[in-house]
Amino acid sequence: MARVVVDVMPKQEILDPQGQAVAAALPRLGFEGISEVRQGKRFELEVADDVDDAALDQIAETLLANPVIENFVVRRVEA
Amino acid sequence: MARVVVDVMPKQEILDPQGQAVAAALPRLGFEGISEVRQGKRFELEVADDVDDAALDQIAETLLANPVIENFVVRRVEA
Repeated sequence: MARVVVDVMPKQEILDPQGQAVAAALPRLGFEGISEVRQGKRFELEVADDVDDAALDQIAETLLANPVIENFVVRRVEA
Repeated sequence: MARVVVDVMPKQEILDPQGQAVAAALPRLGFEGISEVRQGKRFELEVADDVDDAALDQIAETLLANPVIENFVVRRVEA
């Protein structure tokens, strides 16, 4: 078994209202110095050893991310 | 300016219906060999250089994660 992490973030040119809401809340709560917040998703998958990188890319592209508005990165990590 | 990533994941003992939905959909779409999926959040922050790690931890704990049900990891990355 391998552990795979897929990070999904809104593309830079896409509005990110969740991230903007967090960024706007920070000064109200007394935290200064944060100029931008973007919010995305992180998936952790337990994957059998015979699943190859092409299959993982296809899973990320079809099920975990919306490639029209989101970028994704697939990486294998230490279990 | 520094770039900070905060990963927020549901604790292991917490049910994760979003992740379970993805895991259940994978075999229906023809992807075998994925035994577990957990879904969390990923935040990317642009942070001024004078913001210290204690402030970042406090931001993550109060605004980005719910420590009752979620674990979080704060790390500085290359800009």
